[in-house]
Amino acid sequence: MQKVWILLLVIFLPLTVIGNFLHFSEVLLFVLASVTILPLASYMGRATESIAIHSGPRIGGLLNATFGNAVELIIAFFALRKGLTQVVQASLTGSVIGNLLLVAGLSFLVGGLKYPVQKFNASIARTNSSMMMLGVVIAMIIPAIFNNYHPGIGNKLSIGVAIVSLTLYLLGLYFALFTHKHLFSYTDGMEEEEAEWTMGKASLILALATLAVAYVSETLVHTIETVSHTFGWSEVFIGVIIVAIIGNAAEHSSAILMAYKNRMDLSLEIAVGSSLQIAMFVAPVLVFAGLIIGQPLPLVFTWPELAAMTLAVLLTAFLANDGESNWLEGAMALGAYLIIGIGFYFL
Amino acid sequence: MQKVWILLLVIFLPLTVIGNFLHFSEVLLFVLASVTILPLASYMGRATESIAIHSGPRIGGLLNATFGNAVELIIAFFALRKGLTQVVQASLTGSVIGNLLLVAGLSFLVGGLKYPVQKFNASIARTNSSMMMLGVVIAMIIPAIFNNYHPGIGNKLSIGVAIVSLTLYLLGLYFALFTHKHLFSYTDGMEEEEAEWTMGKASLILALATLAVAYVSETLVHTIETVSHTFGWSEVFIGVIIVAIIGNAAEHSSAILMAYKNRMDLSLEIAVGSSLQIAMFVAPVLVFAGLIIGQPLPLVFTWPELAAMTLAVLLTAFLANDGESNWLEGAMALGAYLIIGIGFYFL
Amino acid sequence: MQKVWILLLVIFLPLTVIGNFLHFSEVLLFVLASVTILPLASYMGRATESIAIHSGPRIGGLLNATFGNAVELIIAFFALRKGLTQVVQASLTGSVIGNLLLVAGLSFLVGGLKYPVQKFNASIARTNSSMMMLGVVIAMIIPAIFNNYHPGIGNKLSIGVAIVSLTLYLLGLYFALFTHKHLFSYTDGMEEEEAEWTMGKASLILALATLAVAYVSETLVHTIETVSHTFGWSEVFIGVIIVAIIGNAAEHSSAILMAYKNRMDLSLEIAVGSSLQIAMFVAPVLVFAGLIIGQPLPLVFTWPELAAMTLAVLLTAFLANDGESNWLEGAMALGAYLIIGIGFYFL
Repeated sequence: MQKVWILLLVIFLPLTVIGNFLHFSEVLLFVLASVTILPLASYMGRATESIAIHSGPRIGGLLNATFGNAVELIIAFFALRKGLTQVVQASLTGSVIGNLLLVAGLSFLVGGLKYPVQKFNASIARTNSSMMMLGVVIAMIIPAIFNNYHPGIGNKLSIGVAIVSLTLYLLGLYFALFTHKHLFSYTDGMEEEEAEWTMGKASLILALATLAVAYVSETLVHTIETVSHTFGWSEVFIGVIIVAIIGNAAEHSSAILMAYKNRMDLSLEIAVGSSLQIAMFVAPVLVFAGLIIGQPLPLVFTWPELAAMTLAVLLTAFLANDGESNWLEGAMALGAYLIIGIGFYFL
Repeated sequence: MQKVWILLLVIFLPLTVIGNFLHFSEVLLFVLASVTILPLASYMGRATESIAIHSGPRIGGLLNATFGNAVELIIAFFALRKGLTQVVQASLTGSVIGNLLLVAGLSFLVGGLKYPVQKFNASIARTNSSMMMLGVVIAMIIPAIFNNYHPGIGNKLSIGVAIVSLTLYLLGLYFALFTHKHLFSYTDGMEEEEAEWTMGKASLILALATLAVAYVSETLVHTIETVSHTFGWSEVFIGVIIVAIIGNAAEHSSAILMAYKNRMDLSLEIAVGSSLQIAMFVAPVLVFAGLIIGQPLPLVFTWPELAAMTLAVLLTAFLANDGESNWLEGAMALGAYLIIGIGFYFL
Repeated sequence: MQKVWILLLVIFLPLTVIGNFLHFSEVLLFVLASVTILPLASYMGRATESIAIHSGPRIGGLLNATFGNAVELIIAFFALRKGLTQVVQASLTGSVIGNLLLVAGLSFLVGGLKYPVQKFNASIARTNSSMMMLGVVIAMIIPAIFNNYHPGIGNKLSIGVAIVSLTLYLLGLYFALFTHKHLFSYTDGMEEEEAEWTMGKASLILALATLAVAYVSETLVHTIETVSHTFGWSEVFIGVIIVAIIGNAAEHSSAILMAYKNRMDLSLEIAVGSSLQIAMFVAPVLVFAGLIIGQPLPLVFTWPELAAMTLAVLLTAFLANDGESNWLEGAMALGAYLIIGIGFYFL
């Protein structure tokens, strides 16, 4: 797998750079940029992982919890700077439902085809479900419904909600890394794993990959409008489905691999943890960044987006709260993703 | 009980036929047809059961899963052919909430008055809850919300959703009858049961009863409009409450009988399984049938219907997911049915 | 603590009376009345408790279940008589979410800072969750959605729903005090507790405190409009947040004290039981009282109120259904209360 990433990188990163200089067609540039992001996200993930191992479980957990969705954050930041508020909201939505339904669904399905029943920590699953109910459902629905009832208060509400969400995300980290560390015992295995790279090399790779992602993201965001017109896809569909899948592809493959190895706790941590991170860390950070660059991002999602996120959270809670999974539960999550995907396609 | 069915049948089927020839008042015909359907549904159910026992648990399970709601399917088909789309949607809604709240509620209550606590397989209950969350809630809410946001896409969405729903229903059968058969051990008892009729006799009865149901359903559907005007009931109320109770009466009595015998797994299988069948088999089949006969059925329900179905699924999940029931839980389900019924009455 | 209540009472009750006579500014009167209600509510609660202990667990349970929210009932009654329907609905909403999110949240947090994990009866928690799903979510959402679809039926629906809700509340009491008393074993401890006052003294205190609450409530309700204008707060915000906190302050302190003593069953009974009582006893009684005094109270809440109550019930169910709590779960409930509170503030 790692050879594929290198190959993809040495071919597609230069092509994207050249394409930008020679003004390739925007559709081609969109494809090049999309493909380039896949290996870059993999390098960023692996570098973060190496640094995390060198730093010990607590700092490591903190690093994973803040850099784990750096690619989505960077893409969304450039989209926000260009004023594509709808694309940002759509890609946040797409990341949440993609991680919950597509990643967890594929993990349950792939793992379930090998093992009849897979078990995981029900206590963590339930804590995560409650956190998603707060950070995804309540934090997203309240601004939308209140702003709908009394238009114009969306921006103020978003700032308040972003502060509460981020605070609870940090409290959740403190809970998992300090006061109730023993519950999350599956992270113990991590300490024994060997880092892929030394601290110095990993830091360098992380820095370079981040720079490259920033460069490529700008290209990607720049071309979305043209791609939207050319294929007749709405910008929301591109944000919810395509950008979200590109931005999360590296995590998708890790989560599914873990499920195949019957390490369901890690697999779910990637899928559900990543959703929480998008909703309670990336979204608030974008709200604050928007205030700074004068391009406010109201966390006022459309009804289709809210319905998609709320139903994804409820279904995942129903599937995960008993601490067991099987292939049918994976198929259900994928079925839900398909229904929602069809909906956004026709929008 | 079986003598009552015979008596009802030999009196009311001829009366319905004569009434059609002599042009009885439509309100009287509606009553005659409604009463005639009760014994016919019982005969169809018992014939299917006999064939299922002769065919072994797998084919038998498949038969029950496809013919179990044949009466509702036939009534809905004739209503659809007559262009009564609203009545079809209402009777689907009514069957789902009737099975979940009225049947399961009466089962919990009747069983609970005899036994302080009744236990059933929590694992199956949770799988069924997740399936309902997908097949009833997500599959019904997404088309409605997306069509509301972007009117006109309801029909296309319905076809996509119908394909996904039916596929997952079939996967669910494959799960229950093949890969995870051992979880559903309560069906073992079925193999020991003796068939009421021989294969040949059961097939003949099933064929004749199906023909008679088709004939009577046409009368029933034909008279709904007049009944609606005469009593001042909306067609939606007739569909949600009256048609749904008539179409499901046979199952209602079986489920309650099973609960009284403390066989809660079978009782719940009838109630919850039937709801799933309506939402994930009957509804998609009607969508495809509608395309063929040129009378499309959009799965775009009204907000009251969606609220009723969603809340019924959530309450049932809350009541059933712990694998225990008591009389108060039955009273809660009946209370919810009453509240929703009052709502549709005043609509 | 009890000395504080006496001090507050002997200072603020006379001040309120004098203020009314001397026509103090309405804002000052609002503050005086609010503070006076705190010790009065404490006296009413303690008197009810004493009478309950003297009367044995069943009559005692019944007394607690009907007089437990007498303060809210009295305030709401005077607001209804003055035609402040919106304030009544807001204070009902505020009491439900305040008890679920603020009281349970503080209990989980305060208890969780002392004990890593606190356990309580999961079976009762799940029965309560189902009851809230019925009495708060279904009973409140159905009238709103059906009235929205077909305006004008809200009043008729409310009466029907109020009858069903109250009936189920009484059935729930019968379940807890008679048929399934053994499940609620934590009430056993109550029998050993000594009553603070004799039956006669407690009855006298209850009667006097009730009279005083009625007097002070009228002052409070009378001044809401002016306070609303002076501070620029909407009447809904005053009802949801301020009146609800004042009316429930006594229970708040008891529930948190119980959590601190690790008696989580009692703590949750106060928080969740009080929410149920508001939705299924106080609200129906107000509907009937409204009919009698010719000031009908439709149970048709606004979307922000419905969203707040529904999400509060779902989050509480997610947090409590496993029979365990910790400080993070408390922080989540408080976070949700904060998000909803911010929403109502900006409305």
